[in-house]
Amino acid sequence: MTDLHARLKEAGPLVHCLTNSVVQEITANVLLAVGASPAMVSHPEEAKEFAAVADAVLINIGNPDPPALEAMRGAIEHARGPWVLDPVAVGGLTVRTDFAAEVVRLRPAVIRANASEVRNLHAAVTGTEAGGGRGVDSTDAVDDAREAAQELAELTGGAVAISGPADLVVSAGRTTRITGGSELMPLVIGTGCSLGAVVAAYASVADNPHDAAVAAHARFSAAAALAAPTSAGPGSFRGAWLDGLYNGGALVEKLVTVEEL
Amino acid sequence: MTDLHARLKEAGPLVHCLTNSVVQEITANVLLAVGASPAMVSHPEEAKEFAAVADAVLINIGNPDPPALEAMRGAIEHARGPWVLDPVAVGGLTVRTDFAAEVVRLRPAVIRANASEVRNLHAAVTGTEAGGGRGVDSTDAVDDAREAAQELAELTGGAVAISGPADLVVSAGRTTRITGGSELMPLVIGTGCSLGAVVAAYASVADNPHDAAVAAHARFSAAAALAAPTSAGPGSFRGAWLDGLYNGGALVEKLVTVEEL
Amino acid sequence: MTDLHARLKEAGPLVHCLTNSVVQEITANVLLAVGASPAMVSHPEEAKEFAAVADAVLINIGNPDPPALEAMRGAIEHARGPWVLDPVAVGGLTVRTDFAAEVVRLRPAVIRANASEVRNLHAAVTGTEAGGGRGVDSTDAVDDAREAAQELAELTGGAVAISGPADLVVSAGRTTRITGGSELMPLVIGTGCSLGAVVAAYASVADNPHDAAVAAHARFSAAAALAAPTSAGPGSFRGAWLDGLYNGGALVEKLVTVEEL
Repeated sequence: MTDLHARLKEAGPLVHCLTNSVVQEITANVLLAVGASPAMVSHPEEAKEFAAVADAVLINIGNPDPPALEAMRGAIEHARGPWVLDPVAVGGLTVRTDFAAEVVRLRPAVIRANASEVRNLHAAVTGTEAGGGRGVDSTDAVDDAREAAQELAELTGGAVAISGPADLVVSAGRTTRITGGSELMPLVIGTGCSLGAVVAAYASVADNPHDAAVAAHARFSAAAALAAPTSAGPGSFRGAWLDGLYNGGALVEKLVTVEEL
Repeated sequence: MTDLHARLKEAGPLVHCLTNSVVQEITANVLLAVGASPAMVSHPEEAKEFAAVADAVLINIGNPDPPALEAMRGAIEHARGPWVLDPVAVGGLTVRTDFAAEVVRLRPAVIRANASEVRNLHAAVTGTEAGGGRGVDSTDAVDDAREAAQELAELTGGAVAISGPADLVVSAGRTTRITGGSELMPLVIGTGCSLGAVVAAYASVADNPHDAAVAAHARFSAAAALAAPTSAGPGSFRGAWLDGLYNGGALVEKLVTVEEL
Repeated sequence: MTDLHARLKEAGPLVHCLTNSVVQEITANVLLAVGASPAMVSHPEEAKEFAAVADAVLINIGNPDPPALEAMRGAIEHARGPWVLDPVAVGGLTVRTDFAAEVVRLRPAVIRANASEVRNLHAAVTGTEAGGGRGVDSTDAVDDAREAAQELAELTGGAVAISGPADLVVSAGRTTRITGGSELMPLVIGTGCSLGAVVAAYASVADNPHDAAVAAHARFSAAAALAAPTSAGPGSFRGAWLDGLYNGGALVEKLVTVEEL
C-alpha cells in the first residue's frame, strides 16, 4: 500500500472531475495535495474530449443540472481510464436516482458512497425498497449496507466503497475494513465528495479497483489522524487535514488499521 | 437565546440553499459548524422535491442564471418550512431586481441584506427611488435603512435583518440591535451570504422569525470575536471564525451585546 | 511600484470576474485581501450591465459553458475599464480554443497565462502548431514562450504575462522578470486564476497594462514568501498566503526581485 501512495505521486494522474459545484474547490485542492492533477471540464463537448485524455474520471451527481448530465454521459462513454461513481443523495430525488440507476450499468470501476446511498442505489437498480437517507447524511450503519454493496459489486465487476466511521470496501470475494479518521471530518464539506476523486486517482495507478479504494480511504483517515490533534474545530481542521494529505502518504500504515474480513 | 443555540444543535435542521456559486462551499461549512445540515439542490425538478422535505430554505439571488430562478420559484412554492430571502446586489441589475420584487410578495420569513440592499429592495417593491449600492457592498448606513426595513416587514409579516458593523433586526413592533463582530469579517467572501443560510436554520427552530434573525447574527458576531484576536489577516480569520461558530454557541451572550430598541 | 499597491487599496476597484466555478471563492477572497471588490455576475443580461459599471473585467475560460461564453462576449463588449484574458487550458479543447482565438482580437489589456497556454493561444491565433500543455499544467518553460508572448502583445497592443517559477511580463519594447514565490503555490487551486483577477484590479489603477501585470505578479510572490516559512503544507499555506496578500502590499519591494530585461 505504501507502494501505491508513492506510485500515485510519481504518476501524477490527471483526474477529470464532473462533480457538484459545492465541492469543486476542495476536490481540486485534495487532488493536488496527494500528487494528482485535477481538471473540471463540464462543457458537454469538452467533457468528452477531456475524458479521452484524462487518466481517470469522477462522476459525482451531487447537483445534476441538465447539461451536467449530458457531460457525464459523454465523459463515461469516452473515458480512456477507470471511472468512479459517487451517487450523492441517490434515492429521494428523481433526476439523480434515474441517472445513477442508468449509469451504474456502464460499470464504474468503483462506487463510493455512504451507507444510505449504497442501499438506495441498490434499491433503484433492483426496483426494491430501501430505507433511510435524507440528503447526503447517512442514516444507515456501514455494515447494514454490506449486502447491497456486494450485489452492486457483482453487477459492475468492480469495487464498492462504503464510507463511514469505519469504511468497508467490497468486491467479488473480498471485503476490507479501514478504521481511523476523525469526528471533525464530516463537518467539513467535500471530504466525502473529494474522496471519490482520490479513489479515481488511485484507480489509475492500482492493480485493481479494490486496492485503489482501500488506499484512498486509508490516505484520508491518516490525514484526519494527523490533523485532529491540532484542530480547534472544523475551520482549522480543514487546513490541517489538507496538510495531512500532503505529508501523510508514507505514514498511512502507521496511522490507519486495514483489515481483510 | 442560549436556548435557541442548543435547540438548533439538537434539531440539526436540513437547510436547502439555493445560493450563488461563489459562496456554496463556505455556506455549507458554516451550516455544518453550527450544527445544521446543508444541501444545495438546484436542478429545477429536484429543487421542488427537496424544498418539500427540507426544514428551511434559503433563496440567495447573487448569481441568478435562468434555471436557478426557476429552481428558486419552485422551492419557494413547495417549501414546507420557513424561507429566507437574501436579495444580493438588488437594485442596479435588472434580472435579480425584478425577481426579488416578485418573490418578496410571497412572504419570506426573513429578509437578510445589507443597508443598500434593503433600501433598493424597498424601492423596487414600491416603485420609488433608492440611493447607493454598487454590487454587494453597502454604501448606506444601517440606521438609514431602518424605515425601509419596517415597511418591508409589514409587507411580509416577517422580519428584516440589516447586516452591518452593528446589525438591526426589524419586525412589526420590535427592533433589535446586535453589536459585535470584526472588521475582518467583510474581507472573507460569503460571511454575509452564509448568514442568510444560518438565519434559515434558526428560523426552523425558533418561535418567530425575529428571534431567529437575532440569534443568527449574534452567533456570527460571537464567532468573529473569538476569531479576531488570533488572526493575522483574512486567510487565518476564515478558519478561526469557522472554529468560533463551532465552539461559540454557548458563549454568545458573553461576547455579543443584544439590545431591544 | 509601492505606490501602485497603495493606489489599489485607496481606489478599491470593483472587478467583475467571469471565471470558472472551481476558483470563484478564492478569487473573491484574493481580491478582498488586496483591497479590491469582487463581483461574479454571470447571467448574460446582467453581465453586460455590470461590465458597464465595473472598474475592470476578468475573462477566465476555465469552464466555458454556453451561457458563460455569451456572458463573456457581452461583458467584453460593454466593459468600461480594462479587461484581462486568462486562456485556461487553451489548445487541446475545442470550444475554449475557438473562443480564446476569437476574443484575443478584441484586445485585452493583459493576457495572463502559463507558458503552455501562451504558446497554444499563439498557435490558435496564427494557425500554427504549438507544443505541450495538458489541462492547466504548464509543461513548457517560461522563457520558451517569450517569443509567442511578444507576438501576442503586438496583436493586442497590451501586455502578456507568463506565470511560472519566475514570471515574465512582455509588451512592446519591454520585458520584465519577477522572481519569488513558493513551490507550494501551484498546490493551491486558483492561485493562477485569481492572479488574473488581481492583474485586472491593478490595470484599473496603473498607468499601463505592463505595470499592472508586474505589480500583481510581484504582490503574489511577496505573499508566498511571507506564507511559506510558516506553512506545513498546502492547507496551511492557503490561509497564510491570503494573510500575506493582505499584509504584504508595503513589503513587495523587499521580498521580490523585479528586473527589466
